Amino acid sequence: MTDSKGFLISFEGPDQSGKSTQLTLLAEVAEKNGLPCLGIREPGGTPVGEEIRNLLLDPEYKGMNYWTEALLYAASRAQMVADVIRPSLNSGKMVLSDRFIDSSLIYQGMARGLGVEEIYKLNMMATGNLRPDVTFVFHVSVKVSRKRLVDLCKQYGEKPDRIESEKDEFHRMVERGYRELEEMFPERIVPIDGKLQIPEIHEKIKRICNERLGLNL
Amino acid sequence: MTDSKGFLISFEGPDQSGKSTQLTLLAEVAEKNGLPCLGIREPGGTPVGEEIRNLLLDPEYKGMNYWTEALLYAASRAQMVADVIRPSLNSGKMVLSDRFIDSSLIYQGMARGLGVEEIYKLNMMATGNLRPDVTFVFHVSVKVSRKRLVDLCKQYGEKPDRIESEKDEFHRMVERGYRELEEMFPERIVPIDGKLQIPEIHEKIKRICNERLGLNL
Repeated sequence: MTDSKGFLISFEGPDQSGKSTQLTLLAEVAEKNGLPCLGIREPGGTPVGEEIRNLLLDPEYKGMNYWTEALLYAASRAQMVADVIRPSLNSGKMVLSDRFIDSSLIYQGMARGLGVEEIYKLNMMATGNLRPDVTFVFHVSVKVSRKRLVDLCKQYGEKPDRIESEKDEFHRMVERGYRELEEMFPERIVPIDGKLQIPEIHEKIKRICNERLGLNL
Repeated sequence: MTDSKGFLISFEGPDQSGKSTQLTLLAEVAEKNGLPCLGIREPGGTPVGEEIRNLLLDPEYKGMNYWTEALLYAASRAQMVADVIRPSLNSGKMVLSDRFIDSSLIYQGMARGLGVEEIYKLNMMATGNLRPDVTFVFHVSVKVSRKRLVDLCKQYGEKPDRIESEKDEFHRMVERGYRELEEMFPERIVPIDGKLQIPEIHEKIKRICNERLGLNL
């Protein structure tokens, strides 16, 4: 739990699982209710963080060492926590993060095989022990998220980035990983069925926020 | 100790303490004796490491969070160890590194106050527990190293970089830090008096390498 007036809520799950859409909807309803809100995305969000983001997503660095990758994510996160998240929480804002520590536990700790415990320790150093108040994990099948990604790339004439280009087996490990994290942190993580309709998911997210954070959305 | 055919020797100390000069001299005498050698510098040494180096030394990021700084150094080091140092050690080379883990223990662990133990753990993760076989720590007074730096900048018409621009008190902490590390790792770290003449220091370094690594330089 964050030790401040505000709240930190993270949105997790594979790419194209609907988490950004729901983050935006929650921010809108919070603002409407007079609750100041800040949406952020990882990695990035600060000048040095955006430079780190460019390194991480550049297909040029295909041979990037897995530890280098984990450390770069943590470096970007440290700057974001210090410059953006903590000041916002201290001023009473609701901070909505598109990915946070759990993404590192999954992608680097489990899928890359560096170890969840090691990556957790690393991130507790980087963030000064900051953990989200609530985390929503979106589940869609690998088939669905891959199809959505291919459609999106076609639509915009773009290529998948370095992480998106990983093989299906990697993405299946990610899905299994999120299930394991839910068992490890049941008091914090709320699973979301990404196949449901957008308004239905939105209602569930509002209900959970009201129950767990004492809000009235 | 490295677990391979080659050796890893690091050169540590404040900027302008003479370590690069001695690294070059040792590499020359080793090559002359038929011992293949590789000189490296930190941070950098790989394509992604050089990008990280640019971020770290850019005065633009003056407000860089201390943990971000520590994590970026470790990220660059992880890539260097995986792509350059381990393959070289495995092929029997002598790797000479201008700065290595001790610089992080000093600059981030002590001078920045992040904690030596935490930074040590971080770097053991990043390098897969790689430690130098021998480390030479060069000592010069803050006054001498600052004067050498100012002269050098004048000579080339350049400005000091972000780390070099730190206040004198920071540099005094660095000096004290290296003394503490010598007490912590007496079996690995050899102090070098940077006020001695270049040939005298070179002879001492050769002698230590011969004694500790069974060489015949």
